[in-house]
Parts: sequence; structure tokens; C-alpha cells
Amino acid sequence: MPDLSSADFDALYQRLRGQTSWGPADRRGALNHITPGRLAAAAGEVRLGRSVTLAAPLAGSGPDNPEPGARHMKRLPGEPSEVAGVSFAADQLTMNIHGDVDSHIDALCHVSYNGTLYNGITPGAVTSQGASELSIDDAHDGIVGRGVLLDIPRVRGVPWLEPGDHVTLVDLAAAEAAQHVRVGPGDLLFVRVGHRRRRGELGPWDVASSRAGLHPLAMEFLAERQVAVLGSDGNSDTAPSVVEDVAFPVHVLAINAMGMYLLDYLQFDDLFAQCDAAGRWSFLCVIAPLRLPGGTGSPVNPIAIL
Amino acid sequence: MPDLSSADFDALYQRLRGQTSWGPADRRGALNHITPGRLAAAAGEVRLGRSVTLAAPLAGSGPDNPEPGARHMKRLPGEPSEVAGVSFAADQLTMNIHGDVDSHIDALCHVSYNGTLYNGITPGAVTSQGASELSIDDAHDGIVGRGVLLDIPRVRGVPWLEPGDHVTLVDLAAAEAAQHVRVGPGDLLFVRVGHRRRRGELGPWDVASSRAGLHPLAMEFLAERQVAVLGSDGNSDTAPSVVEDVAFPVHVLAINAMGMYLLDYLQFDDLFAQCDAAGRWSFLCVIAPLRLPGGTGSPVNPIAIL
Amino acid sequence: MPDLSSADFDALYQRLRGQTSWGPADRRGALNHITPGRLAAAAGEVRLGRSVTLAAPLAGSGPDNPEPGARHMKRLPGEPSEVAGVSFAADQLTMNIHGDVDSHIDALCHVSYNGTLYNGITPGAVTSQGASELSIDDAHDGIVGRGVLLDIPRVRGVPWLEPGDHVTLVDLAAAEAAQHVRVGPGDLLFVRVGHRRRRGELGPWDVASSRAGLHPLAMEFLAERQVAVLGSDGNSDTAPSVVEDVAFPVHVLAINAMGMYLLDYLQFDDLFAQCDAAGRWSFLCVIAPLRLPGGTGSPVNPIAIL
Amino acid sequence: MPDLSSADFDALYQRLRGQTSWGPADRRGALNHITPGRLAAAAGEVRLGRSVTLAAPLAGSGPDNPEPGARHMKRLPGEPSEVAGVSFAADQLTMNIHGDVDSHIDALCHVSYNGTLYNGITPGAVTSQGASELSIDDAHDGIVGRGVLLDIPRVRGVPWLEPGDHVTLVDLAAAEAAQHVRVGPGDLLFVRVGHRRRRGELGPWDVASSRAGLHPLAMEFLAERQVAVLGSDGNSDTAPSVVEDVAFPVHVLAINAMGMYLLDYLQFDDLFAQCDAAGRWSFLCVIAPLRLPGGTGSPVNPIAIL
Repeated sequence: MPDLSSADFDALYQRLRGQTSWGPADRRGALNHITPGRLAAAAGEVRLGRSVTLAAPLAGSGPDNPEPGARHMKRLPGEPSEVAGVSFAADQLTMNIHGDVDSHIDALCHVSYNGTLYNGITPGAVTSQGASELSIDDAHDGIVGRGVLLDIPRVRGVPWLEPGDHVTLVDLAAAEAAQHVRVGPGDLLFVRVGHRRRRGELGPWDVASSRAGLHPLAMEFLAERQVAVLGSDGNSDTAPSVVEDVAFPVHVLAINAMGMYLLDYLQFDDLFAQCDAAGRWSFLCVIAPLRLPGGTGSPVNPIAIL
Repeated sequence: MPDLSSADFDALYQRLRGQTSWGPADRRGALNHITPGRLAAAAGEVRLGRSVTLAAPLAGSGPDNPEPGARHMKRLPGEPSEVAGVSFAADQLTMNIHGDVDSHIDALCHVSYNGTLYNGITPGAVTSQGASELSIDDAHDGIVGRGVLLDIPRVRGVPWLEPGDHVTLVDLAAAEAAQHVRVGPGDLLFVRVGHRRRRGELGPWDVASSRAGLHPLAMEFLAERQVAVLGSDGNSDTAPSVVEDVAFPVHVLAINAMGMYLLDYLQFDDLFAQCDAAGRWSFLCVIAPLRLPGGTGSPVNPIAIL
Repeated sequence: MPDLSSADFDALYQRLRGQTSWGPADRRGALNHITPGRLAAAAGEVRLGRSVTLAAPLAGSGPDNPEPGARHMKRLPGEPSEVAGVSFAADQLTMNIHGDVDSHIDALCHVSYNGTLYNGITPGAVTSQGASELSIDDAHDGIVGRGVLLDIPRVRGVPWLEPGDHVTLVDLAAAEAAQHVRVGPGDLLFVRVGHRRRRGELGPWDVASSRAGLHPLAMEFLAERQVAVLGSDGNSDTAPSVVEDVAFPVHVLAINAMGMYLLDYLQFDDLFAQCDAAGRWSFLCVIAPLRLPGGTGSPVNPIAIL
Repeated sequence: MPDLSSADFDALYQRLRGQTSWGPADRRGALNHITPGRLAAAAGEVRLGRSVTLAAPLAGSGPDNPEPGARHMKRLPGEPSEVAGVSFAADQLTMNIHGDVDSHIDALCHVSYNGTLYNGITPGAVTSQGASELSIDDAHDGIVGRGVLLDIPRVRGVPWLEPGDHVTLVDLAAAEAAQHVRVGPGDLLFVRVGHRRRRGELGPWDVASSRAGLHPLAMEFLAERQVAVLGSDGNSDTAPSVVEDVAFPVHVLAINAMGMYLLDYLQFDDLFAQCDAAGRWSFLCVIAPLRLPGGTGSPVNPIAIL
């Protein structure tokens, strides 16, 4: 039996949507929380002069990757070359933007719920030619701000959350307390559930049906703290869903109701090591989506700068 | 008649290569100039709390883009969905990593010269499976440092450099003087030749044969100043080449001799406007290549933070 | 001023559509003209024991090919192999099904006119997942029958028809007479306009705006003779269109009204030489679309057997 | 312990290679067995006037298809169109040429053994740009001849051969006797092992490690009978291999020693039903590879005409 009935979920959806206050023409959603002052202040997080990737390498085929991306070589440097005095190595990239393993960002056009995209935009704005509204190119100047990593396995004293488990509002608050950090307005919030570590140690599994994520009610925390962006080493949504008749409730609440870009299947193991060693869990963070006009998202390599 | 004979060029190559001092095991090349101290200092460049893209949107077919990248839709949000209560917009991306229009970064495996890649690595390290050495994933933690934009059309009082024209050592010094900025160790140097502006105003042309770029001798400037990375709105190399029997001398010198990542076909028009208005030409810069193990480069969207 | 007003064209459309008599459940259209008896009789066309391709090689980029297909190597035979005692060469193919240069077949779902596909099927039968009706897989058993080549430049005494010129009903009848062949029920009709020869001699041009093809009224000939399939070395449609407000009238009449598969951008030069030498213009012909369920067509290599 | 030692296999390889007699310039291999007279005679196999596909539909992801091909829509017919009076459905195809499920043909450049391709051609003839020798375009005029289907499960009285089982020389002779057909010079031989039926009934499995196929010694039968082409519903090779230190012995013998194109992962269930009902196991067969210059093979839909 689901935790939340359809009616409960709809009430939650309406409540969170009602807290967005940027008007009918808005296309930036929760990015509006990142003011110039907050961005400039975030630069002050840089102390060690180190940068760390929050992405995982392009993955091969597996139970969580039935349509893997690929790189193919176009030219090899050892071969005769048509150009004078030099030869090049070159390749071509093919990959799905979304999926269940490669690190990526979801644009605000990604989720349709109750016949609408974010802020009342019609799903018809997305055609075979791409999204004429709410595409990832709306974030072409990058997303820059203070990043905070909340590590749930650490505070719970487990190596990872098992698939199907939920990060609750209480977990988030407990992690804040344990890590001596407080999530604030305009922050880029990263919630580690240990997905990548589990995958590394036990091997990949069918994450489409079994996945740790955030409980939908935990989104109240993000709304209250005016978080700008949410990222996870999973996709932020638990599987199976705890909501009656809605498969991806966190996607619906974050992207569709709150206008919040999601980052899915990031990798926090490198960052964790740095933060744990330094005893600090906040940092400057830069997310640079590719410029894909009409795109529903982008592969990304978010960079934390400590 | 070329400006530089083969012998001249070879001497230049040897001189610049001889100045790299990181030993035979080195794989980072000029990125070694970015020390933690310099990276941390670069964060101090952030004043306005604004971020700006240095990339151009994915381009369509044209005389400078005979094999254009493409996005194809995989799912449309208006259609019946196999998931409960929600429908998704999703797409797939196919693109060449290099080419003459999309903004990208070249890895150190990209250029083979005289039978070797950077630092004596054999071209055989790149096979149909990709690069086992010097791939773009060597920069997976991002490239972060102080960026400096030198605007050559501005100092010359022209809208752009005509194809075939060269940015000389003197041009670089003159731009520094005019802009009251000095390029220093570990900097990410961006040299604007006006390529994108010309393309926007006159339309695309066959840049493979006709292109403004840096004169090979200008690389002495970058070596002396210990520049970490070079980017341009062209590809840094002039066409036709001024070097006898070597088609891409700046690529050879930068990537192969100096171990310097190149960024090609960036877009500086947005950044120019910000810098010009602020009267400052330095900024924090973050380059986040995708994590493509074995890859010869990556599409990128470098972000300047002012 | 166009040759045919909207009203003229609509009358022609209705007249040709009215002659299809296979009922509302039909999905084969003009392929119904190929009866077992006619197919068996077509085998009698084989005399010389020779087969000839009617396709052109996969083309590179050009003014008629702004999004060229590509083959990329996945494995090279000279490299170390993960399998014992043997190494493989393998590649990957990416290509558009349609376009203006590669030889392909159009499925009956390809053309929507006046809010409907062939036989009243709704355009909504084609979604981002492909065509649930009228896809190319409806022809998965191949199209086999008597092929007839009518060579219009030959009968007119010119090397090719100039772009913009039309093959009329009179041209078809004159070619029949000159070649001593009569197009009959169930035939696969190939109409050569000399497009490939012109392209070979003068180089490619922007065929999207300037192209020789059939005059829409010539489709009366195909209907009367109960032709099963139409192929051309162009795409059968003239550009610019001679019909007011309809850009591809032959596509509309053939595919949408008559249920006739079209083959575009074939290559008849090899076949022409054989037919001309033998003094015979009919042959057994086999068209084998790839099995692409949901597909709107397929690359093909039709084979003529003489 | 393998059935054949390295020395045994090498002797078999040399014996079969020694029987090819077309000289050092030959690039057609066993296709030379298809003479015009034999091709013309094959047309006499057409009696019923029916054609049947020997291909399977493009497959989705599975344990035998870790890198599935894909079709993506480029245009949908229900959407606003840039062309007058008509709208199109169009798509794009991406697929690997080889692999373990989609029906395809292997070109003679596909297999390197003992440092050579077929007929002594160097593996260096295949570069990142494709095969300059022995590419699939050498068969651009199609492969047309008499097809014969030998059904091994039928003669053994089993639904299919289990993975790891072998079709022996005796099996081939027994199937001939039971089916009252004799394989002869220039024939296109299809050997059914029941792979597709097993897959349909039990679901896909990891065929890379477990697969029914021909015993290498059975290739003596094909050499003696001067078979032109070999196709199977598997890939003709058993897994695991019965040869010491050689993983794909039938590929090596057929393609590399005998110059015989292989067709892998065909589908004979439709053809079986027709042949079984008619009591005849020979037919006209047409194989039409796509025109992919430099290609190592092609997806195909071979057509049997009865």
C-alpha cells in the first residue's frame, strides 16, 4: 500500500507549486534563488584550491543501461593523414541524454504531469524538433552557486541505502546536524544515497524497478530552504514509488511543480573523500550543460571547487 | 611562400618542448601550471556574481559543418506513457567531438607529430577502442583557474580578423596593454579573433581552408607566461598555414610540444559584453569536459564567472 | 503560375484515390497488384543470369546531403583482439532513412495529406515510437515482380532532364514505344530522368529546390496500368512544384492516394547499360527493405535480374 | 578438451584454402561459383509466386543485444510542417553491422587470421576509414542464386539444437536425404539450427558464450559442393569453440580461407512453413546488401522466392 494516496500527492503538488512566485513568464524556476550576491558569496567557499568531478565515466551496457552510449573513432593518429605534417585522433559521440546510469541534468521540459509542463506550459511545446520552451539551453550560462553535500549513509552508519529505501525529511535534518552545515537559499543540494558505491561493490542491477531516493515529503525541506538545484547519485526518486498512481513523484514535484532542475546519477565518492578529510561539506559548484537548443537535458560533469 | 621553413618550425617545436619539465610520466602537461594556490586565488576574481557561457549552440549543417551533430527525440510528453501518472520528454545526442563549428576541447592525444603524441607517447596508444593514454578523462576533475580574454579586434579597431590573418606576439602584448591585464602562470587564456561575429554577420564559410588564428611564433608568449590552456573563437590555427609542410602548427606546438589543451570554436560575444562593461578582462573560469574515457576531447560549455 | 490549381489537384487526388479498391482494412495498397501469377511470370524475365544494383553508394556531405550518413569502425583487424586466434573488422551505421541522395524506399506512413495517411489512417498512428500502422515492415517479405525501366532522356535525345523539367504522360508513352515495352499490371516501374548522370558530371546541387520529376498528371498513367511501385533516380517529384500550395504532389498521389511505395534516388546507370546492350527493358526485380518495425521507410539496394 | 587441436585446425584451414582457385587478384571468393547459367537456372525455382523474408525485425536490448540499434523519429506527420500542403513522417537509423541478434551479412574483410584477411590481403587494408579491399560493396550487385534450406532440428526430431551442439557433416547429409534435395555448385546454403525458435520460446540468452552452430569439419561439405554463401539462424559458429585457441573457426574457414560470405542471425521460421507445406526446400534467393563502401558487412533482408 502506498504511503501517499493520489489525493495526498495532489495536495502536496499544489502546495509546492503555490510557493513558486516568479510569474507566468518565468522559465528559470528555482534557479531564481541564485542571486548575484549568493553566487559571489559562494566563491568564498574556495579554500583548498582543488576541483573534483561529480560525474561518473560514460558507462557500458548493463542491467541499468540497456541502450548504452558509445564513442566511435573517426580517425586514428597512426594512419596516413590527409593533412600535412600531422595526424589526428578524432571520435564521435552518441548517447541518450537521460537513462539510469550516465550523469545528466534534466531540463524543465522533461516532465509532463496532469497535462502540463512547468508553469503551465503545454506539452505540445515539445515536438519531434525539440522543446520550443523550457529546453536545457535556458541554462546556457551555467548553474553556479554554493553546493552542499548531505551524506545519508554516513549519518545512518550504513554503506548505502538499500534500493527501495527513502531519504526522509528527518534524514536531511540529521545529516545537516551531523555534518555541521545548513542548507540555505540558492544552494545546490546534493543528496548521497550510496547508489554508486553499491553499484561498484555489488555490480549493476535493474534500477528501473528498485532504487533508493527521496521520499516525496522531503521536498518540503527543499522548498522551505529555497534550494536551487537537486542532485543525487541515484535519480532522486525511489522505486517502487510510494505514491498511488504516480511513478516518479520527486521528478513531478521538483521539475514540474517547483521548477527545479534535477541532476541524476552523479558520483560523489571523490567529493566525499575530500569533504570528509576537510571536515567541510560546502563548496563552490559549477554545472555546465552543453548548449543543446531544444534539448530535454544534457550530459554533465558538475565540478565542485573546494 | 611560408613564413616558417620546416627547419624553423622544428627548431621552434624543440625549443617549446624543451621547456616542459614534468618528466616522462607526466600526463597533465600545461595543466601543471594551475597550482592549488593559483586556483584558490582565481576564485577571488568573482565580484559581480554573474556567470557567462563561452560556448555556442550546437550548429546545423553548413559549409563549416558538413557532418552536423543532431538531437533526436526518443519520447514526447504529449503521448501516451508507459509510466504511471507522468510522461517524459527525452532525446538522444549524436555529434562529432571535433569539427569546425561546435565548441569543444582537444585532449592531449588529439595530435600526432613526427610519430609521437605528447611527451613521447606512441600514436599506437590510440586504437579503435579509444586512447589508452592522454584521453580527455585525464581532465575529469575539470579545469579551473583564472581566465583572461584578450580581444584582438578591439585593440586593432576592426570588427574581426579576416580569414588568413594572424595574431602575433605583438598583438597579444598590445591587447594586454590596452586592456590593462597581464597574463600570468596558470592562466586560461582566451584569444578572440572575431570568428563568431564574422560568421554571425556574413554567414558561415569554408573555414577548413580560410581561418584567422595565432601565428606559431606567438606560442612563445604562452610558454613564457606559463599559460595552462588556450581557447579561441576559431581553432587557434590560421588557414592556410604559414609553416612549410605542417598544416596545424599551433595544434602541434600547443598540444603535442607543450601539453596544452586547446579549446576550439568558443563564443566570446556574451563574455566580451560583460568584460567591456565592467572594464575587467579576468574572471574565474571552469571547463568541465564530459567523462569520456578513451575520448580525444569533449564538447564543452566553459563558464566564466565574474 | 502553377499548372494545377488547388481545386484541380484535389480533383485528381480524389479520382486516383477512388480507384483503389482494397477496402478499409487494406495496408498493402498498390502492392496488391502483384499477384502470385504475376510474380511467377516475372521470374521468366531472367535470361542472361546477371544481377545489377539499382542503388548508389552511401553519399558524403554535399549541397544535396546536409546530414550525411556515416559508418564508424568499432574494431580494426590489425589490433590486439579479445577473442582467441582471430580478430574482426566491425563497424556501425548511422543514416537518415529519407533525404535527397541516398537510395531509399518510402513506406505508406511517410506522407500525411489533408489530415490523413493512406486509406484514412490517422497521422496520430505515427508517434515518437514510430508508426503503429503502415510502417515499412508491412513489406517485410520483399517486393518482387517484373521491373520496367523507362528512360526519358533516351527518348528525348538528351543526356538528362534539367532540374525543374517534367516527365509527362506523353513522355511515358513515347518511351514505351521507343523501347518496345509495355507497362502492365503489377509492374515495378522505374523512370529515369538522368539525375544521377547530371550529378556525376556537373556535381551535386541543391536538389531540394530544383529537381526533375514526374508531372502529377502522369500518375494517371500509373493508375491505369496498375503499377505496383514507382522508382526514380530523383525522388519522382519535380521542384518547384507545379501544384498550387502542394509541395510534393507525386508523393501525395502515389503514397497517400494510391497506396504506392516510392523509391527515391536510385541509380540506373548500371542497369541502363545492361538493358541498352540487351535491347530489353524488363527484368525480374527484388526490393528488400530492412526489417524496421515502426519505420517510415528503409535504405534499399533494389536488384534487377536479367 | 577441444575436438580439434591447433595443428588439426591449421591443416583443415590450409586444405580448404588450397581449394580456392581464383588467383591472387580475386575479391569475390565463393561467389565465383554463381555462374550466369546457374543464376538463370535458379529463376526456374519460382513456382508459387510467393516471396518470404529470411530476416528478423530489428531487436531491442537483451542479453544477446547489449548495444541495440535504434530508430529515432526526425519528423512526425501530425505536426506543423515547413512544406506546403503536406507533412512527412521521417526517421533515422543507427545500428551495429554485426552483433548477436540482428540479421546481417559479413563481408570478406570481416575476419583476420594469422595476420591476413582473405586471399592474403593485409589487415592494414582496414583503417578507421573502412576497408579499402574486400568491403561489402564488392557485392553491390546483390547475391542471387538457388537457395537451399537444410533443417537440422527437423531431421533430428527436436525443436532446436541446444546451445553448444554441433551440426556435423553427417547432419547435413541426413537433412539432404530427408528433404530430398541436393546441395550443388553455386547454391546459397541456409542451415537452420532452431536458434530463433528457441529464442522465441525461452527468451534471449547470452549467445556470445553458448550457441549452436556448424562443426568446423562440416565445412568440408560446403567446399566439396562448391557452396557460394552460408547463412544460419545462429552465426554458424558454435560456442564454446571446439578448436584449440581459435574462437570462431567456421568464420575463419568460411570467410578467411574459402572467401565465403556468411549471413548471421537470419530467421527461417516463415520460410520453413512455406517449404514444409510445399514439400520443396529450394528456391530463388536474393541477398541485397546496402551499398556501404568500406563497410565490413550490412544489415540485410534476404528474400526467398518460391
